Amino acid sequence: MPRVLILSNQADEYRVLLENAGLPDLELVGTSEVGEALSIGADSEFVFGEPTLIRELLPSLNHLRWVQATWAGVEPLLDPSLRRDYILTNARGVFGELMSEYVVGYLLLLERRMLERHQAQEEQRWDDTLTGTLRGKTIGLLGVGSIGAHLAGTAKHFGMSVRGYTRASESCLEVDTYFHGDTRLAFASGLDYLVSVLPNTPETHHMVNSELFATLPAHAIFLNVGRGSAVDEAALVDALEQGLIAEAVLDVFEQEPLPKDHPFWSTPNLWMTFHTAAPSFPADITRLFVENYLLYIRAEPLKYQVEFERGY
Amino acid sequence: MPRVLILSNQADEYRVLLENAGLPDLELVGTSEVGEALSIGADSEFVFGEPTLIRELLPSLNHLRWVQATWAGVEPLLDPSLRRDYILTNARGVFGELMSEYVVGYLLLLERRMLERHQAQEEQRWDDTLTGTLRGKTIGLLGVGSIGAHLAGTAKHFGMSVRGYTRASESCLEVDTYFHGDTRLAFASGLDYLVSVLPNTPETHHMVNSELFATLPAHAIFLNVGRGSAVDEAALVDALEQGLIAEAVLDVFEQEPLPKDHPFWSTPNLWMTFHTAAPSFPADITRLFVENYLLYIRAEPLKYQVEFERGY
Repeated sequence: MPRVLILSNQADEYRVLLENAGLPDLELVGTSEVGEALSIGADSEFVFGEPTLIRELLPSLNHLRWVQATWAGVEPLLDPSLRRDYILTNARGVFGELMSEYVVGYLLLLERRMLERHQAQEEQRWDDTLTGTLRGKTIGLLGVGSIGAHLAGTAKHFGMSVRGYTRASESCLEVDTYFHGDTRLAFASGLDYLVSVLPNTPETHHMVNSELFATLPAHAIFLNVGRGSAVDEAALVDALEQGLIAEAVLDVFEQEPLPKDHPFWSTPNLWMTFHTAAPSFPADITRLFVENYLLYIRAEPLKYQVEFERGY
Repeated sequence: MPRVLILSNQADEYRVLLENAGLPDLELVGTSEVGEALSIGADSEFVFGEPTLIRELLPSLNHLRWVQATWAGVEPLLDPSLRRDYILTNARGVFGELMSEYVVGYLLLLERRMLERHQAQEEQRWDDTLTGTLRGKTIGLLGVGSIGAHLAGTAKHFGMSVRGYTRASESCLEVDTYFHGDTRLAFASGLDYLVSVLPNTPETHHMVNSELFATLPAHAIFLNVGRGSAVDEAALVDALEQGLIAEAVLDVFEQEPLPKDHPFWSTPNLWMTFHTAAPSFPADITRLFVENYLLYIRAEPLKYQVEFERGY
């Protein structure tokens, strides 16, 4: 009977969820320790878990056929020195709603001046000054995969215009205008909000740079929910300090956790969260595994396959 | 030529918008002063403006046919001692998007613990604890008119279940389950979020009371974007102090501005804004006037008519 090794910090929770899924002909073993995984699961065909943990075990998995990552980002497994003789699928399609909550939530925090209003309350002051709205704004999405597509739908729901910058794809109908290639500054010009949903690939490295910040209007808000590597962090510090843009909201960084001496800790008009915008909830991720396992045993192509060369 | 008197604190802005609309056969006069209105517009057929100002002028308007209020709430004109020999239309259909922004924004502020996360940032602390989501929650709408219907659509967009409590109407398809009459406690039972969109009528007075708060789960969040009169404010203070519910977000109050000695200023877990959730933006409200004026000159029924007896 084929075996899946669950190698995750939430191995117990995933094991219960998978047991309850009642998958046919599948043995389950689980642990959060690479050492224990070696002894209980080195001969597993399937591995389900966190890319950082799986990376350590990778050379020892002699019967490996398929890895289902519990994360969207699988960079730890993409190092060219690592084997690529297996199917790698990542977590996709489950983060759109959560990312939309995050982006809309932080835009509204800023537009509606919630902190200033709360300050007025603490000072017992009836502050009925008007605030901004999302309605009528223009949002630009750097990257329109499944997360970007969900964001586009949410933006339309709130009455925004939506621009999308992609390599070539124009498949999301809720994007009003697409941009590709060297039209990135035209894409950025006049945006109220710029959201990076870019993955970490050589192509996206520092795609959000000083030129882009100089092109955005001074009232623009920049949000990064993709990967930190897409942003030139020094350029962002400059842009905020010089008022080239109004605010930035970051959930991801080039180095995580953010180093204690990083300038972001004291950069003005910067709002940080800590890679918490769209967590991998085990119930969601288990659904992906189950879906793919059922495809696997029917010998059908798996969903959410990562192309090692492309990087996502 | 018929004349419209614009009686509004934003009379100049409304006058420019109406002039640009180029309405046929209509003379425009405008002021924010009731005294000046008496001399320049007492013989106007149409009045367009704020109910509080119009109320003072009402007895002197000898040729009055139609009042288009710039607000949703027209209580100042509903006093039984006042004349009712004219068509009263209010502002409707333009607040749904803004109210949805407000409700979603404050729910996300609380679920995503944005203030605590901001505090962590100020303390240079990498706080990657999980936060809550809107997805999967159950929201209850007290009142499902045009605003409630928009809220229902927004709630579905974010993956919530939606209950609606109405007098009889079941016209909004995005409400999953309807409740009416004496089933209010069944409606409230198990809700994650309760939103009052109720207008100020004798029937809705203190509809949100201690019994309702006792029925809600202890983790529930209550929001009031309707009218303050729908809430028993003393009962809400008790509910928050005793932890019967987790949080409350109020944009409206029985008395506005909120009196300096009101207990709300020091009630725990209460978030207040100051009747700013969905402002009447002149461009939106002017569209309503124009739409109704064109119906009027074609002798067709006006939209958004208020029934004086019903109160909305």
